[in-house]
Amino acid sequence: MQTELTRRLAIRHPLLLAPMGGVSGGVLAAAVTGAGGLGLIGAGYGERDWLERAFDAAGDARVGVGFITWALDQQPALLDAALARAPAAVMFSFGDCAPYIQPAREAGANVLVQVRTVAEAEDAAAAGADIIVAQGTEGGGHGGSRSTFGLVPAVVDAVAPLPVVAAGGIADGRGLAAALMLGAGGGLVGTRFYASTEALGHASAKQRIVAAGGDDTLRTTVFDLVRGYAWPAHITARALANDFATRWHGREAALSADLARQKAAYDDADTRGDADTAVVFASEAADLVDAVTPAATIVERMTQHADHVLADHSNRVTRST
Amino acid sequence: MQTELTRRLAIRHPLLLAPMGGVSGGVLAAAVTGAGGLGLIGAGYGERDWLERAFDAAGDARVGVGFITWALDQQPALLDAALARAPAAVMFSFGDCAPYIQPAREAGANVLVQVRTVAEAEDAAAAGADIIVAQGTEGGGHGGSRSTFGLVPAVVDAVAPLPVVAAGGIADGRGLAAALMLGAGGGLVGTRFYASTEALGHASAKQRIVAAGGDDTLRTTVFDLVRGYAWPAHITARALANDFATRWHGREAALSADLARQKAAYDDADTRGDADTAVVFASEAADLVDAVTPAATIVERMTQHADHVLADHSNRVTRST
Repeated sequence: MQTELTRRLAIRHPLLLAPMGGVSGGVLAAAVTGAGGLGLIGAGYGERDWLERAFDAAGDARVGVGFITWALDQQPALLDAALARAPAAVMFSFGDCAPYIQPAREAGANVLVQVRTVAEAEDAAAAGADIIVAQGTEGGGHGGSRSTFGLVPAVVDAVAPLPVVAAGGIADGRGLAAALMLGAGGGLVGTRFYASTEALGHASAKQRIVAAGGDDTLRTTVFDLVRGYAWPAHITARALANDFATRWHGREAALSADLARQKAAYDDADTRGDADTAVVFASEAADLVDAVTPAATIVERMTQHADHVLADHSNRVTRST
Repeated sequence: MQTELTRRLAIRHPLLLAPMGGVSGGVLAAAVTGAGGLGLIGAGYGERDWLERAFDAAGDARVGVGFITWALDQQPALLDAALARAPAAVMFSFGDCAPYIQPAREAGANVLVQVRTVAEAEDAAAAGADIIVAQGTEGGGHGGSRSTFGLVPAVVDAVAPLPVVAAGGIADGRGLAAALMLGAGGGLVGTRFYASTEALGHASAKQRIVAAGGDDTLRTTVFDLVRGYAWPAHITARALANDFATRWHGREAALSADLARQKAAYDDADTRGDADTAVVFASEAADLVDAVTPAATIVERMTQHADHVLADHSNRVTRST
């Protein structure tokens, strides 16, 4: 499955690890790269020591890194620290990427910009992005409201000839093959890799993802509210509808009114890995995640499954025409 | 592109016309069937005279019909009127289909049930549906919150071996090919056929769809509120974000407080085809709709495009392995 994207990124499979904050560390990123995809370390809210350790943990593996752009704005030197590691790719999401594109490209990195609307895609292309990541609302974690299925082909048309990566809802080979049909050059996968051996995060969270289905997720701001993160308007996070979300979603004013007490309880639960209270970011594609497995196994199965699905339908077309 | 679905429905292309109320009349349904797909007349809120005329207009064409199940509950005899026309298929959506499945099947119709969650799909399969339509939130008109990309494969797994049709976000051959990759046996298409010569509805609405993109749509209840339709909780409608929606969405209480006056103004605008006020249901895939064309042209282009996309990727897989 070679595409313009795989050629540009010099990878064997059209599969990228989503740079999930607190989940996509150096070991996971290196494992995805080692299996033929491209691993992106998640810089999250930007702890420099953590990021340095993540690159150390990736060792010699050719990995990339993904930033939350508005968090990077608060400490832009973090980009320099990352570029000093000569990442294969740098991805920006949620904010104005324009100031960062030139330095990243001059350091030899492929610049990926993640967008949630066609208008954002046009802005990212105009700002000089090399590759556009079109992220649908079904994805886990932070995102917008448009869905992958309609967004990807519209973004492909809007930014051609730039390569487009589909993100949101891809958790098996069917999703990867479908992303290619929509015109994407590959898929960016989060939740399926969260449930991997190498992912950071509590074992309890991984088990919840395995047990849950997409009907059990929601988009909400209550976890950002209690954690004290000031996300831009219209950006919510998809997570499992655990006890905390069920209690507070739609009652954000009441949560704000009792914030100090709720935050203390939340932080304690988060430390303990109590997934009834602590957030478990998860995609609607959680239905398709049935076990915690090594990342290399995930890459291998997804790409072989995608090949099989494509070949199978191609045979049907051939037979019927 | 023969699939289990096309064999079961005895159609040439895996493409179904969504039974859009007020839009999918007999002429449009017959045109889709004539081009090798399956046209479904939209029974909408259930005007019997209108439905009889729609079947008359379809003539000898082999068409089906789709009901809003909660509206059918209010006048179940409408199903008998439809079954007297020996429809090829009957589709139920939004409500408890269980009482209607047996009569429809006994009349020789294929029974399609449209669902929005995996749990609904399991219920529909248990109730005896022949075919499940998995509808994503990106679709135009009424629907739920889950997206096509993750929903379709999860529903396929949940109801196997029943055939599944993907709905929501399909407006060109890329979407149809992607639906097949996700495991669906075909696609149910609304908005792309709304912008067809044969569709009912104002020319102004069709032109708005052509001009708009998916960024310009929203899910809302304000049009149901002003029109006086009592939809179930959690069911909203995706429409273009016109002046009326922009003014009232999020201000539903204020709209309710001034309902009589607003309704009079709305009904007047609706009669005049004033798309600044009257609802224009539209999918996020509106980006992909660039002209009002005959339905047969839409069927031909979508299926040829899907064949091409599938064959193209199949060649790449072959070349790279």
